[in-house]
Amino acid sequence: MKREETVDHQIKMCWHAIYRMYNQQAVQHESTTSMAFVLLNIDPKEGTPATKIAPLMGLESRSLTRMLKNMEEKGFICRKPDPNDGRSVRILLTPLGQEKRKLSREKVIRFNQVVRESIHGDKLDTFFEVVEKINHLIESKSIF
Amino acid sequence: MKREETVDHQIKMCWHAIYRMYNQQAVQHESTTSMAFVLLNIDPKEGTPATKIAPLMGLESRSLTRMLKNMEEKGFICRKPDPNDGRSVRILLTPLGQEKRKLSREKVIRFNQVVRESIHGDKLDTFFEVVEKINHLIESKSIF
Repeated sequence: MKREETVDHQIKMCWHAIYRMYNQQAVQHESTTSMAFVLLNIDPKEGTPATKIAPLMGLESRSLTRMLKNMEEKGFICRKPDPNDGRSVRILLTPLGQEKRKLSREKVIRFNQVVRESIHGDKLDTFFEVVEKINHLIESKSIF
Repeated sequence: MKREETVDHQIKMCWHAIYRMYNQQAVQHESTTSMAFVLLNIDPKEGTPATKIAPLMGLESRSLTRMLKNMEEKGFICRKPDPNDGRSVRILLTPLGQEKRKLSREKVIRFNQVVRESIHGDKLDTFFEVVEKINHLIESKSIF
């Protein structure tokens, strides 16, 4: 089995290609791919508890903490104590953050539209099915 | 379009799941997923020029430099001037690095074997075809 033929290598390289593509867009708006994904995971009206964002992103909370600090300094987000739980922190979008979130959403929609126009629906369905199956294999801990 | 239904989200989450799975194995051998992939990209006999590793990994060279330093401190690799080009540096595996590379290889083979046993060959072919098509769309710069 050559390295290029492995499932993990293909997924990794494809994700890196997507990441770089979005980053080229994001830098034009003083943002990054990772920040764009955080923005998309914050509810634009209600905000989102800080603790809920990391699992939505598949991130470790330590990396997220650093990024949230960065995004606060850029004026994309602000932190407020949660009205329902005083010990918990809620992340809210600033008006600038709202704007950046809208831009990020447009880029994601554009990419996915082109993919859906260029690849047959049946093939995309199979692609999603395979990804789901791989996720299940990993979650089931049956591999190692 | 819901976030979970986007192609980029599926690929990202699947890659993160694979990354974490490998990491759980790697920490048992004082390594990480990223280090394991670097080891796999180093020729075990001849070594590999430092400048060739980053593109093979889809990494920025700055992140790689930091990781190579880390791996040198762990005794996995050593640096030697390239015999053909004195200004260039070649990365070689130490005996410990050879051992870690062998382990990494076994984990990758195991994961891919289970995937291939669990998912129909036709579906995997379609999966690879879709990934390739997405990569081409991105490379062709026709999206943005």
